[in-house]
Amino acid sequence: MRIKIKLAYDGTNYGGWQIQEKPTPPPTIQGAVETALFTLVGRQTRVFAAGRTDSGVHAHGQVAHFDVGERPRLLALDWQKTLNALLPKDIRIIEAKMAPENFHARKDAISKTYVYQFWRQPEFTPPYLRQYVWSCGLVDEDAMSRALLHILGKHDFASFRNAGTDTKTSIRTILEAKLEQTPPLPHYPAALPMLVLSIRAGGFLKQMVRNIAGLLVHVGRGKMDPDAVADILAKRDRRALPSMTAPAGGLALAHVEYPED
Amino acid sequence: MRIKIKLAYDGTNYGGWQIQEKPTPPPTIQGAVETALFTLVGRQTRVFAAGRTDSGVHAHGQVAHFDVGERPRLLALDWQKTLNALLPKDIRIIEAKMAPENFHARKDAISKTYVYQFWRQPEFTPPYLRQYVWSCGLVDEDAMSRALLHILGKHDFASFRNAGTDTKTSIRTILEAKLEQTPPLPHYPAALPMLVLSIRAGGFLKQMVRNIAGLLVHVGRGKMDPDAVADILAKRDRRALPSMTAPAGGLALAHVEYPED
Repeated sequence: MRIKIKLAYDGTNYGGWQIQEKPTPPPTIQGAVETALFTLVGRQTRVFAAGRTDSGVHAHGQVAHFDVGERPRLLALDWQKTLNALLPKDIRIIEAKMAPENFHARKDAISKTYVYQFWRQPEFTPPYLRQYVWSCGLVDEDAMSRALLHILGKHDFASFRNAGTDTKTSIRTILEAKLEQTPPLPHYPAALPMLVLSIRAGGFLKQMVRNIAGLLVHVGRGKMDPDAVADILAKRDRRALPSMTAPAGGLALAHVEYPED
Repeated sequence: MRIKIKLAYDGTNYGGWQIQEKPTPPPTIQGAVETALFTLVGRQTRVFAAGRTDSGVHAHGQVAHFDVGERPRLLALDWQKTLNALLPKDIRIIEAKMAPENFHARKDAISKTYVYQFWRQPEFTPPYLRQYVWSCGLVDEDAMSRALLHILGKHDFASFRNAGTDTKTSIRTILEAKLEQTPPLPHYPAALPMLVLSIRAGGFLKQMVRNIAGLLVHVGRGKMDPDAVADILAKRDRRALPSMTAPAGGLALAHVEYPED
């Protein structure tokens, strides 16, 4: 039988989702989940995720699936509770349920939503947020929102793709992209509200969201005109991107959408 | 000259505010600040805080003071920026300014406000909140709010004081005590809102707020009538308290109030 799980994790201490073939591999989320599953079902069980988040990237709503035999003990299992008891506290199962035999966490996903958090107060970052934001300093929100409009819709995102991918096409459709202020943080009356970018698409290229976030800050710092984003897209060349890839810690996979939802 | 600083810290990795005299002392917030100051001013400089937070307790607005010589280099210093450059990222200076020679962070404080965060969803705790909440499971908010009413005002809090203090009187006045729901967390649509206790008083006894938080959860779980809090207060004996001291991670020193604010 096939089990579908929804997970949240703090990616700070992990080398990303995917198990790595290296002489001294870093801990990974996939590795931790497969280790817990091994304890539970007694055999090596591969887990497939909707999105292979990078090293240091978080998730509020990653989705994954795996297959286990239909043994009576497993049929009766509270998968969420039992897996949470076996997993480290920085990885949590939010939901677990049986899925149709042909469900596939990655292939069936209609869209994925990523969020990226910008901390703007230049003087300090609240300690409890330090691993979940990019402390980018003062940026012009209106300019960033204008730049973001050029990202919306169907484009060739070759300029926003980092090396190391094997996907054929670099055309992607951004279904939604917005920049919002969070409500003021309690107990930080002096602090500027945080900016949160949320971006939804059927699929993303390697480090595409972090490259978009990096360009937004570049624009927000007044180093580029917001409308120049169109030219960068048109060049279809990573070398046309004048900005850095935003740090991993600000990014989280927020939601994966399926037809059955 | 005397410098007044306002600090935020993540207490997770520290043995509390105060430097400890032990064969293998844990790292402390005070120790970290004094180490940074030693680098800056070239001599051992004692730092006095408004509240000596316990091991694992956080702060959003701790206040402290210290004295340094009026050397030209120090007079011109941006204390916030320079100290933040020297401190670990889990301790941040939010504000630093010169204070009158007779200012005392602890003695001059009119009131201190502590906040305690309760996470109620029994199935999971979001990883990014795990070190800042008590995952106490389902509790009855109304019963807890009713219990809290008995805490308000001037009482002998001997029943809420843990051993190890040398204060003469255990009478304290709670100026404000409320229980509020936080706005729903983004990306956790299924989650119950978090409950936040905030409590303001001129002074607190050892682990008094955590003992109040522990009793509130006891009441919230239906194990005690909210109005029985009055009897517990009347007994003036720690042995009358039927509940545990709430875990340190849920607590933060939120604000210290001074006459000049």
